[in-house]
Amino acid sequence: MEIRVGGRSLAVTMRTPGHDYELAAGFLVTEGLVPGGDEIASMTYCTGPEKQEYNVLDVVLAAGVAPPAAAAARPFLTTSSCGLCGKASIDTVRSKSRFDVAGDPLRVAAAVVCGLPGRLREAQKVFERTGGLHAAGLFDAEGNLLCVREDVGRHNAFDKVVGWAALGGRLPLASHVILASGRASFELVQKALMAGIPFLAAVSAPSSLAAELAEEAGMTLVGFLRGETMNVYARPDRVT
Amino acid sequence: MEIRVGGRSLAVTMRTPGHDYELAAGFLVTEGLVPGGDEIASMTYCTGPEKQEYNVLDVVLAAGVAPPAAAAARPFLTTSSCGLCGKASIDTVRSKSRFDVAGDPLRVAAAVVCGLPGRLREAQKVFERTGGLHAAGLFDAEGNLLCVREDVGRHNAFDKVVGWAALGGRLPLASHVILASGRASFELVQKALMAGIPFLAAVSAPSSLAAELAEEAGMTLVGFLRGETMNVYARPDRVT
Repeated sequence: MEIRVGGRSLAVTMRTPGHDYELAAGFLVTEGLVPGGDEIASMTYCTGPEKQEYNVLDVVLAAGVAPPAAAAARPFLTTSSCGLCGKASIDTVRSKSRFDVAGDPLRVAAAVVCGLPGRLREAQKVFERTGGLHAAGLFDAEGNLLCVREDVGRHNAFDKVVGWAALGGRLPLASHVILASGRASFELVQKALMAGIPFLAAVSAPSSLAAELAEEAGMTLVGFLRGETMNVYARPDRVT
Repeated sequence: MEIRVGGRSLAVTMRTPGHDYELAAGFLVTEGLVPGGDEIASMTYCTGPEKQEYNVLDVVLAAGVAPPAAAAARPFLTTSSCGLCGKASIDTVRSKSRFDVAGDPLRVAAAVVCGLPGRLREAQKVFERTGGLHAAGLFDAEGNLLCVREDVGRHNAFDKVVGWAALGGRLPLASHVILASGRASFELVQKALMAGIPFLAAVSAPSSLAAELAEEAGMTLVGFLRGETMNVYARPDRVT
């Protein structure tokens, strides 16, 4: 799907169709291109001379909201990339987020954390049928599942959840937990930070850059969350 | 790592350091930007005013080889994306590859196919330590492991293997099998096609677009290769 802002191409993502508006909104927020859902006036699928395939989405920003700079159109990215490298990018990310998660008073019982993957899995309807989709789930401190989204790409699934929150006026997602079905990449930590989420859990491994960024940002980062065990890479005080 | 060609930025990828020259060469080949290793004259890490961090690589093409068009610098990609969508892209990919894999006479015994994940896993040294890296392995028809590469991104691991072959003058990789540690994306099928590989196996699910492209290209596509079972999505005649 191609995401356009005011008619100009911003990004193309190989996504699983569904919740496209949320994906676009979430992408804009987690990339720091718009502050939240209030800055989005409308979204429409573009129509062209060919058959409508719902693969091009145009976002119209609210009056007075500046469109993303041309430089924001990500010029050189390749798959599995975030277009950022090393320390310089960590500094950039930290200064970009409107939200500070370090002081978030969230505490979650370890037993609740261990129960999250099971709750997410139960809600993954497409994974159940295909065995091939990633998912992201948003939980409150008691482990209640508030929103689950699936996508062939784990970053897209994550963006769809954040987009759901942004369009519903729920940002920042203070005192929430987000769970990713795969690994915890640097970019997922970055996206969580942009949404004000203080607790990121993943069923698989984090990258070293992801752990570094979480530590610097004061975000709790849990990896290898399987059965009754987990690794806590940053801010373990939130797991009680 | 940023890949430059003749000093001009082409792509930035979040990669696991190591085998960077192979990654750059493989990326250029599997994206159809250069035909093979012969067209690459040299590669060097760029030096700048800051501390050398080996994150920028410049590729010098051989005399007479045209540099990639400016349009090849992938302008709008995001993570988990291939920048291509649907049928039009499948047509594009088919016309781009120099190699025809449909007629490849490769046959592999089912028992050999089932043994590949175990052989790959044994060779994944970094996964053994971290539990967090993807891998790609190149095998011959008897299941001998010829090359294994690991990377945080599965497409990078794949490109490193193809780059190893390209720099060693081994393209096309006719009658070889390549195994991916994760899912089989559309892009991995595309990359295999660009390297002339007639058999792609993956331990997890393929996407529907991946299966369609494999079918159209005459490539054998195996997914969910686990234990003694597998799903064959295209050209099952090569599994005996």
